[in-house]
Amino acid sequence: MDNPVLVDVTRGNLTESLHRGCVAISDASGNIVCSIGDVDAKVFPRSAIKALQAIPLVESGAADALDLSDAELALACASHSGEEVHASSAKVMLMKAGLTEDDLECGPQWPQRMEDAAKLILTDETPTGLHNNCSGKHAGFLGLAKVMGVDTRGYVEPGHPVQREVRLVMEQLTGATLSEDVCGTDGCSIPTYASPLTGLARAFASFGTGEGLEPLRAEAAERIYNACINEPYMVAGADRFCTKVMEGFRGRVLVKTGAEGVFCGSVPELGFGIALKCDDGATRAAEVIMATILEAVLELNEEEAALLDSLVNPPILTRRGVQAGHMKPTDELLSALKTALP
Amino acid sequence: MDNPVLVDVTRGNLTESLHRGCVAISDASGNIVCSIGDVDAKVFPRSAIKALQAIPLVESGAADALDLSDAELALACASHSGEEVHASSAKVMLMKAGLTEDDLECGPQWPQRMEDAAKLILTDETPTGLHNNCSGKHAGFLGLAKVMGVDTRGYVEPGHPVQREVRLVMEQLTGATLSEDVCGTDGCSIPTYASPLTGLARAFASFGTGEGLEPLRAEAAERIYNACINEPYMVAGADRFCTKVMEGFRGRVLVKTGAEGVFCGSVPELGFGIALKCDDGATRAAEVIMATILEAVLELNEEEAALLDSLVNPPILTRRGVQAGHMKPTDELLSALKTALP
Repeated sequence: MDNPVLVDVTRGNLTESLHRGCVAISDASGNIVCSIGDVDAKVFPRSAIKALQAIPLVESGAADALDLSDAELALACASHSGEEVHASSAKVMLMKAGLTEDDLECGPQWPQRMEDAAKLILTDETPTGLHNNCSGKHAGFLGLAKVMGVDTRGYVEPGHPVQREVRLVMEQLTGATLSEDVCGTDGCSIPTYASPLTGLARAFASFGTGEGLEPLRAEAAERIYNACINEPYMVAGADRFCTKVMEGFRGRVLVKTGAEGVFCGSVPELGFGIALKCDDGATRAAEVIMATILEAVLELNEEEAALLDSLVNPPILTRRGVQAGHMKPTDELLSALKTALP
Repeated sequence: MDNPVLVDVTRGNLTESLHRGCVAISDASGNIVCSIGDVDAKVFPRSAIKALQAIPLVESGAADALDLSDAELALACASHSGEEVHASSAKVMLMKAGLTEDDLECGPQWPQRMEDAAKLILTDETPTGLHNNCSGKHAGFLGLAKVMGVDTRGYVEPGHPVQREVRLVMEQLTGATLSEDVCGTDGCSIPTYASPLTGLARAFASFGTGEGLEPLRAEAAERIYNACINEPYMVAGADRFCTKVMEGFRGRVLVKTGAEGVFCGSVPELGFGIALKCDDGATRAAEVIMATILEAVLELNEEEAALLDSLVNPPILTRRGVQAGHMKPTDELLSALKTALP
């Protein structure tokens, strides 16, 4: 099945490039509110599910045992930009577990922004695992391993108790069987299990509302949700989509990007979970699709509307900052959302 | 018309992302040797046609008047990485025309590699127009304006004599009418005219062989072709596809990347020109498609085969450098090439 074109990229009067994809919006019972494209196809959720992968850390009591703050819990759910505040907070998380950056198995990564890279260069440093966009998630995994009393080494392997816990939670939340044949290795070396968008959307509906969850899990989900919306800068960073949306919506939504064009989110006031994937892996298009969905499902005040408008139609600029074109949702996406939603 | 899937991106046992696109291969008479997808659709060629945009500079005698070397001519055809050698050579080109970097209208850009950015940061510099990947092309435009005796200011505007010359050459080579309605602004602020891939492929066939060109233009094309294959480092830089392919093929092919998933090339020994566009604008896929085409059309020695093999199936790595998947041409691309080619 060919997924429809959901985003156009224009230059002058013409469409220069286009992006196809699929979208599932579900409630916590698995009722699909909106379905665009092949929502049953298996998608590697990558970093879009970090908030769900943090559940065992909280549910087990490890987050309390380690005295993790909201900012640190948000960092455990982050694909951060490797700014100073992110790297130093990951270091503190590790210290709380009696560990150091040498225990990280995610690999090094340069900070995303040149100004943060420049700080390292000027002090003759090279990036470490702390600057890896996943360092908070890894610090959380390591903390959980420590509190569980298991060997921290190899915590990224599919057979390690931490990854088995995470997989179990994902199976329960998505309703999908996450076996070896759908397992890939993520960029930060942990397993990523391909799952249908419908299951991912349902998981984010349960996560955002607590519906259908055991009390302890519902409590853990609420604590993680609140950590992310209270500390959105820790989830991404300066000028990042996830941070801007969670700051702008002040608790109304949680959104989280993943590599290769995946995006997930929760809208508790409507009981919705959202999961989408851009066929070609383009983050730029996944962001436009997520912004378009939020615009379609939510009642907006003026500020929220202005924020989404800038994200639904981001400009394409020359290197002198002049607008040469823009990105935009296709009529197909807009009408599919209009038709599907109540 | 939906373009076919030409490249798969795998992770573990599954396809994670995919890329659609179209390909035209033509001879200099406009006979289409291979056609995949909608090759009549208008595509912004962006930087893929820089070698053709350099024709007026040589044909007019300006390159001789300015005493441009092969390396400088190659830089005029480059989307370079902003390394020291690229920026300093662009500066010398400008000096030869009695100009400076202040005359560049392309805007600044950080060097592509962190190690080159670091050199600027450590000397407390910020990037200038010289580091813009198009600085050599702009230095060529400015040199041409100077030799033509026209005002250099506004040389990026569609109505400037330099851009009118460039547009005329492109119309003659592609056979397409390049009017205002297909004109967009490129990232470096010059006009880019959307043209059918068939016309672009034909243009690169003429460019590589001289067939059907007036003697003066054929001579200019040959000089530019030779400059690029003699100085492939100036056309791109360290670890770049265009440089690696032109170095590895020692004159057998010219290839040139463009933004938003465009790639063009000439294969003079076969009389072919190649033009391709990835629907979603992905450079990673355009490179795989170009490498796959070269593998299909050329007889290869062992080294050439090894080089192309690495480019046809590039690995997807974790941040620790472990392979998690790879990119690969689809059966549809491979069989379309096999069916179409003699």
